[in-house]
Amino acid sequence: MNPTIERLQSHRSIRKFTDQKIPREAFETFIRAGQSAATSNHVQAYSIIHVVNPENRRKLAELAGGQAYVVDSSDFLVFCADMKRSTEAAERAGAEVIRGMTEQLLVASIDTALMAQNIAVAAESEGVGLCYIGGIRNDPAQVSEILRLPEHVYPVFGMCLGYPDQNPEVKPRLPLAAILKEDYYLDHQDQSLVAEFDNTMRTYYAARTGGTKDTTWSEQLKPLFTSKLRPHMREFLLGKGFEMK
Amino acid sequence: MNPTIERLQSHRSIRKFTDQKIPREAFETFIRAGQSAATSNHVQAYSIIHVVNPENRRKLAELAGGQAYVVDSSDFLVFCADMKRSTEAAERAGAEVIRGMTEQLLVASIDTALMAQNIAVAAESEGVGLCYIGGIRNDPAQVSEILRLPEHVYPVFGMCLGYPDQNPEVKPRLPLAAILKEDYYLDHQDQSLVAEFDNTMRTYYAARTGGTKDTTWSEQLKPLFTSKLRPHMREFLLGKGFEMK
Repeated sequence: MNPTIERLQSHRSIRKFTDQKIPREAFETFIRAGQSAATSNHVQAYSIIHVVNPENRRKLAELAGGQAYVVDSSDFLVFCADMKRSTEAAERAGAEVIRGMTEQLLVASIDTALMAQNIAVAAESEGVGLCYIGGIRNDPAQVSEILRLPEHVYPVFGMCLGYPDQNPEVKPRLPLAAILKEDYYLDHQDQSLVAEFDNTMRTYYAARTGGTKDTTWSEQLKPLFTSKLRPHMREFLLGKGFEMK
Repeated sequence: MNPTIERLQSHRSIRKFTDQKIPREAFETFIRAGQSAATSNHVQAYSIIHVVNPENRRKLAELAGGQAYVVDSSDFLVFCADMKRSTEAAERAGAEVIRGMTEQLLVASIDTALMAQNIAVAAESEGVGLCYIGGIRNDPAQVSEILRLPEHVYPVFGMCLGYPDQNPEVKPRLPLAAILKEDYYLDHQDQSLVAEFDNTMRTYYAARTGGTKDTTWSEQLKPLFTSKLRPHMREFLLGKGFEMK
């Protein structure tokens, strides 16, 4: 295994950072590496807000569910799906633009994720740790207000970047056979593979907590699906011009 | 710059492959590297269909718009957003599951993209080339039929993997300042940055075609936005149980 793949496989979220700042040059290199990711039809449907203002970081940390590392990390980014720049460019070139297609929401969200993951990989290759902040979608309307996001731009997730001040274990993943299928989506084996993974996670949680945390993957998923997770997202996206037509 | 970042920045889509097959062990290493990517709440909301059957690859190549490399590449993958596995696991653990939330569509699509990009990075680190196949969404219903995708699973994009038999140039990206903004989404500079990028792309196309292709980024975007791009996506997703509630 080459060092790049070793790095990829040793990824874990970092939520405690030293005071050391990422040099600006390295930071920009990470962003450029992000831009190098594939992009649907070259549309590059993303923008990144680099949140420097301490008061705004404090507010965003709170909105994300009280995540202190949004404040304490060296750099905090909000990744936005951006259909504004490209559609306006096409308009200036004379196009009668159609907006609000479901496909556009997908393209922009996927473009943004591919770019962000390249940034994550680049950062980790330089010893920088990170965690994604999905909690940015807890209150995307207020996040948008703080960051002054216009129509046709929505905040997909945040990312904390900095030098790790902790060394957490790598979290196990589903068995390969559960997610990789040949030719057809056959899931007759999935129940036993999930059961196997439930055991893996039970062992993992027990080991990390000296036996006090007794739970499984399936158990941990329950609260995610029994409540209406972020039920505001539909209305929020509609209001931002992502009409899912 | 370290070799990982150099690799990231030298990414370009490969659409012509040698006959050499990717060894199974390397292939599985790439997939595992994909699984190592961050995943929202550990949900791992994805499945990959590894399309081996030649007849199915031929059909998929056609559905994707006649892309021969879907057939000619060493390996062809269809990345699926999968809300079936995790919600059923939670159900078996006793949860009364709510499905069809817009947030779930986002989580699954983003999880899938993060994983795919890690696979892309891992593959390129071993000299394998690739291209994403968004054309899989041209006719997602037929793709789903061929791959027997059940409800709560949708095909996000494909990926061709193989050893490059071409060496295309790296395609330019927007200026950093166009996509990286400090504290607020301010776009008063965007028009001039896009104009600058239009010039960059004009030069790029001219150089690649001996001067016969005279166009810009903005011009190239026009057909994307003047037609209803993949207008079936909404109905297709609704039918698959991604109800965008």
